[in-house]
Amino acid sequence: MPSRARWSEAAMNDTIRLFGLGLGPGHPDYMTVRARRVLETADRLVHFCKRGRRGNARSIADAVVGANHEREIALVYPVTTEIPADHPDYAAALNPFYEAAAAQLLAETEAGRTVAVLCEGDPFFYGSFMHLWWRLKDRVSIEVVPAVSGMSGAWTRAGAPITWGDDVLTVLPGTLSEAELSRRLSCTDAAVVMKLGRNLPKVRRALATAGLLERAIYVERATMTEERIVPLPELTEDFDAPYFSLVIVPGQGRRV
Amino acid sequence: MPSRARWSEAAMNDTIRLFGLGLGPGHPDYMTVRARRVLETADRLVHFCKRGRRGNARSIADAVVGANHEREIALVYPVTTEIPADHPDYAAALNPFYEAAAAQLLAETEAGRTVAVLCEGDPFFYGSFMHLWWRLKDRVSIEVVPAVSGMSGAWTRAGAPITWGDDVLTVLPGTLSEAELSRRLSCTDAAVVMKLGRNLPKVRRALATAGLLERAIYVERATMTEERIVPLPELTEDFDAPYFSLVIVPGQGRRV
Ligand SMILES: C[S@@+](CC[C@H](N)C(=O)[O-])C[C@H]1O[C@@H](n2cnc3c(N)ncnc32)[C@H](O)[C@@H]1O
Ligand SMILES: C[S@@+](CC[C@H](N)C(=O)[O-])C[C@H]1O[C@@H](n2cnc3c(N)ncnc32)[C@H](O)[C@@H]1O
Repeated sequence: MPSRARWSEAAMNDTIRLFGLGLGPGHPDYMTVRARRVLETADRLVHFCKRGRRGNARSIADAVVGANHEREIALVYPVTTEIPADHPDYAAALNPFYEAAAAQLLAETEAGRTVAVLCEGDPFFYGSFMHLWWRLKDRVSIEVVPAVSGMSGAWTRAGAPITWGDDVLTVLPGTLSEAELSRRLSCTDAAVVMKLGRNLPKVRRALATAGLLERAIYVERATMTEERIVPLPELTEDFDAPYFSLVIVPGQGRRV
Repeated sequence: MPSRARWSEAAMNDTIRLFGLGLGPGHPDYMTVRARRVLETADRLVHFCKRGRRGNARSIADAVVGANHEREIALVYPVTTEIPADHPDYAAALNPFYEAAAAQLLAETEAGRTVAVLCEGDPFFYGSFMHLWWRLKDRVSIEVVPAVSGMSGAWTRAGAPITWGDDVLTVLPGTLSEAELSRRLSCTDAAVVMKLGRNLPKVRRALATAGLLERAIYVERATMTEERIVPLPELTEDFDAPYFSLVIVPGQGRRV
């Protein structure tokens, strides 16, 4: 454990035992100074993952804490990919999972340990951590460490400033219906579509309907070694996008 | 100057001489590791400011490089506050300013110096740096360092996760008309309104029209020592907001 002096240097509350730790888009040098420090010093590192796989946030931490670590807690999602997120069974499957995870982390903090929940990108922007946060926020002090979002990593690496002048930016989850996606894409200056995976063909059709396909850029694993950046029209229509990818449509606002 | 080894450790191109350096929302520990390193080592630090004032980005750098520095270049905006941004005179005043600034920075890099343009938040998100970037991108190698945005700092410090589940986020400049603001606010799940200042009364009316005033949170100088966070309805209607403030309307999407 580092000296407490290093913590208070950050003017942060040193009684905090639970962290929502934003690790940024992937490159270890794009972690904040605060995130590095918490990562190096927390007693327990927690990450979400699917059965038999490592979580994306955990992989981002490799460069700092190594791939194997004795202080880990993996929160393995129950299998829910067959259940649409708006179906009651989805909440029925995930609610007990988050409840148990929250209880486990609370017990760790009550035993006097500092616990860092690793988050890809920024924790409060579509983050799984939020489901733990609202279960625990009135029971334990939580420090959320903001981070560079995946979309910032994406537009930076694509060399594509996202908003100019009075541009309006719309951020859409690729899980929305094609009709809703195209309607919303039709009335924005700039856009980001998150959570692609199997949603990509639908997102592509919606972008075409909205007249934005030509300006759309596909970005996979922004800032990571396996990064891939391609103008969306150049991808074949059956291209198999991983979940960890997004589409950006840069704005064209006022340039002086 | 640090050894080049430290630069290449970051797997970044060490022939880069011009940086768009995102410094994050304000707290020095919310700078990225990369930003700290470039800030500590660049030969020239450049910042935009109004006549007789220091720029916000320059103030963020104080904690790392001190308030006075012999390596500075201040780019002082010509006075344009009386000219609306959509008036031709606005571009007529700013175009020569950006052209001269671009030429000055290019000359610095040609003299072999590394030049860091300090940016508040993320450079490619409504950043002034973008106007230099597009003038210079085909003439010199530029590294843009992404950063925690002001809005991420704001929703983190407000304890208000911005997007849940399938929430749609709309980011709006407060410079838009009241009609456009209220129309766009009426059809989004979550919102951020940037560039407040004298636009705040108009933004407030638009939020009220859209039925979002009760959920709106005013955040000034997020993560800085002078930070102020207040539910928007609690501010008096004649409240004088600085430019460096924004409003967030957190989403209410699926929580499991
Ligand atoms: C559950 S959301 C979490 C978002 C994250 N909290 C953030 O700030 O970016 C997961 C989605 O984020 C996007 N994402 C996050 N980081 C990314 C990266 N480095 N490259 C591409 N997409 C990324 C992908 O669209 C992915 O489906
Ligand atoms: C020219 S834009 C630059 C945005 C910046 N590039 C970013 O990523 O946040 C300036 C606006 O950003 C917002 N802003 C940036 N940092 C902020 C902070 N720490 N607190 C409140 N507002 C901030 C304000 O709305 C301000 O008017």
